[in-house]
Amino acid sequence: MNIVLLSGGSGKRLWPLSNDVRSKQFLKLLCDEDGNHESMVQRVYRQIVHAGIDADIVVATSAAQVESIRGQLRNDVDIVVEPERRNTFPAIVLAASYLESRKMMNPEETVIVLPVDPYVDVAYFETFGKMDERVQQGDADIVLMGITPSYPSEKYGYILQGAEGKVTGFKEKPDEASAQKLIDQGALWNAGVFAFKLKYLMGIADKYVKDRDFSSVVEHYAQLKKDSFDYEVVEKANSLAVIPYDGSWKDIGTWNTLSEEMKEQSIGDVIMGEECVNTHVINELSIPVVALGTQNLVIAAGQDGILVSDKHKSSYIKPYVENIDKRPMYEERRWGEYKVYDYSQYTDGTKSLTKHVTINAGCAQDYHVHRFKDEVITVVNGQGELVVDGCLMKLSRGDTVSVRRGQKHGIRAIQDLQLISVQISEDSTEGDTEVLDWSWASDSGSCQN
Amino acid sequence: MNIVLLSGGSGKRLWPLSNDVRSKQFLKLLCDEDGNHESMVQRVYRQIVHAGIDADIVVATSAAQVESIRGQLRNDVDIVVEPERRNTFPAIVLAASYLESRKMMNPEETVIVLPVDPYVDVAYFETFGKMDERVQQGDADIVLMGITPSYPSEKYGYILQGAEGKVTGFKEKPDEASAQKLIDQGALWNAGVFAFKLKYLMGIADKYVKDRDFSSVVEHYAQLKKDSFDYEVVEKANSLAVIPYDGSWKDIGTWNTLSEEMKEQSIGDVIMGEECVNTHVINELSIPVVALGTQNLVIAAGQDGILVSDKHKSSYIKPYVENIDKRPMYEERRWGEYKVYDYSQYTDGTKSLTKHVTINAGCAQDYHVHRFKDEVITVVNGQGELVVDGCLMKLSRGDTVSVRRGQKHGIRAIQDLQLISVQISEDSTEGDTEVLDWSWASDSGSCQN
Repeated sequence: MNIVLLSGGSGKRLWPLSNDVRSKQFLKLLCDEDGNHESMVQRVYRQIVHAGIDADIVVATSAAQVESIRGQLRNDVDIVVEPERRNTFPAIVLAASYLESRKMMNPEETVIVLPVDPYVDVAYFETFGKMDERVQQGDADIVLMGITPSYPSEKYGYILQGAEGKVTGFKEKPDEASAQKLIDQGALWNAGVFAFKLKYLMGIADKYVKDRDFSSVVEHYAQLKKDSFDYEVVEKANSLAVIPYDGSWKDIGTWNTLSEEMKEQSIGDVIMGEECVNTHVINELSIPVVALGTQNLVIAAGQDGILVSDKHKSSYIKPYVENIDKRPMYEERRWGEYKVYDYSQYTDGTKSLTKHVTINAGCAQDYHVHRFKDEVITVVNGQGELVVDGCLMKLSRGDTVSVRRGQKHGIRAIQDLQLISVQISEDSTEGDTEVLDWSWASDSGSCQN
Repeated sequence: MNIVLLSGGSGKRLWPLSNDVRSKQFLKLLCDEDGNHESMVQRVYRQIVHAGIDADIVVATSAAQVESIRGQLRNDVDIVVEPERRNTFPAIVLAASYLESRKMMNPEETVIVLPVDPYVDVAYFETFGKMDERVQQGDADIVLMGITPSYPSEKYGYILQGAEGKVTGFKEKPDEASAQKLIDQGALWNAGVFAFKLKYLMGIADKYVKDRDFSSVVEHYAQLKKDSFDYEVVEKANSLAVIPYDGSWKDIGTWNTLSEEMKEQSIGDVIMGEECVNTHVINELSIPVVALGTQNLVIAAGQDGILVSDKHKSSYIKPYVENIDKRPMYEERRWGEYKVYDYSQYTDGTKSLTKHVTINAGCAQDYHVHRFKDEVITVVNGQGELVVDGCLMKLSRGDTVSVRRGQKHGIRAIQDLQLISVQISEDSTEGDTEVLDWSWASDSGSCQN
């Protein structure tokens, strides 16, 4: 069995902690069994392992999320990068092609596809075995997971089932009365979890791409229809079956629903007066948040901004924050993270960017070059190595190095390395980073420091 | 006539914007007639000028406030620095001594003493003329200002008056019924505004200090009784008179009362959802604050922290913030201002401090030296000059200079100068600044840069 996790949706519904590069699934606001904070992605990965599922895991996502996934799941998963965002059908074909041509998976094997961020019990993952069995039984092209409904919701899709779990139809977002009737007839919510034999999907892929090898699918990605997997595959299948899951299943995409699942009233440097009622505070800043006499509030403070919202109003955040066009002020990277302290543009168009950069011990930035940016790096803690134009310099606390535009450079951390970087550029700084191969720097001798 | 403004009370009732070096009277949250933001201190100074009072103004304060006062009132006032904080009697004697021995004021002239931050109409200052006249009339040692009470408050002191405005007694904080009786008898609130002839107070000073010359009073300041002016002078006077002021007089020492006087619902980068009711937001940070569906809240975000408080609960802030022992993250200085981006202490005890410093055009820092701190300065905007150990260097954008411990240095701005300073010290950094005389640097030639 192979598992494909679809990691989508950059977005601002959990602003200021989620932004264009940090989707909600990467926020470490939940707790594992030992009380350590974990993200939705980490929770799902932990649950899959805990459920004892023997499967390789592939995450299909956009380039923007790769650093976050590597930072949170290390090398425990494979990552397939969508060349552009096109909807779930192309993303799943891409992942399937990767499994076939790179992982050499047996075409008879089962692939299970699910969103990366369901908030569920471990039992959810335990149904995967039943889905696999049913796929292998061979009487259904696609096997769906169906959630046992807890109330006649108007916002979900319903799967109608007949004898032996055969799917007899679908009903999208019925009104409450119709929903109740469907439930009485044994209908289940569609959780967006699909299982199928690898060869079944690759057969469909053949209709769109001449060569189903992974590199070719990447190259001709634009030829794959920009449609959902439901529309392009599920609705066109000859036979469908459903396996029920009768446990907790929640959408925690708003501050209101997320705060309900938080174990603590507050995370971070927070002081709450005793008269605070039903208030949750999440503070990622290094300055304290004090809440006095607040009621039904969620307060979230991060590098991108500060939200103070009535809990029920928090789901209406989008129009208020979608036009905030500041650059992301915090990014998690494969090698560590950075926080932006200041980003200024001056009257003559010049920009400056001051960042606090942390590079984890043993990790390295890309070896890279800026064409329009000069940079001053000052080490405030830790030890590492800086290579500039092939010259190696040891870095330790108090060292300052000026890297001029055009100079190839990169830093490796020996111990956790913290530094202040001040960049000055005379033109647009965004995108002014050309990544080079570290091997270019690898024969670097130790130059005069 | 001379005016002495008493600028006291560092404190945290307006935390996070007020702190140990930035008292509430320096927060620019009010508006002048042209809609420009001004502080309480600036408002009072503007009103004195507007009332057409021809008087020299002396501010008596602690050393910690000198930079803020110079920054906000420039050289329009004299400043008398209390050698230590000892209460109002010593502070007023010190200011009077300054007027006598440094300003050569005629001992017959009137001195009017008031707090630096009354929130009042201009008419308040227009009563000063009447107080002066009454002092010069000679039938009262001290002339007080009495506020016409607007309700039987239990929290103020009452001045009882007889014929011709002669004071017949005082009553501190009566219960409501007694207060009403006092008001019916023509009693007035004590506003803490005193007028007297300079020679009267200096006569009292003679009881405490052998030599009433200013330098001597400074030197022997500890000999002045640590008492209030009310207790030590007013209550012991032979005859007192009162001049009524029948206008607005408010204490705006809490977020609740201050927000009532704000012309805007928000100051700074703030987005308010339309369903916010009776909410005031003050944001001094460079990241946006978004408020959705909030009611009766004050939200204040500054370099020191973030407050979210029910308005009526905001006056109970003190116990929640008094133990926050972070260093001030923002300071206004005579020459400009700085913001702290990061202040970290590492496991081996070393500290680092990263600041954004603005030096106003034409202004200069003190020439100074650190014994335990190394500093890296990177200019992000503007032009100036740096002197290091007597060597002059021109500074402009992109320049980086390392100043090692023990090196005397100081910066002057030619144009507004913005720089990032990273300081690293192996020991306690607080207090590690020895101020030197700029003249030591003044024969500096231009050294090799």
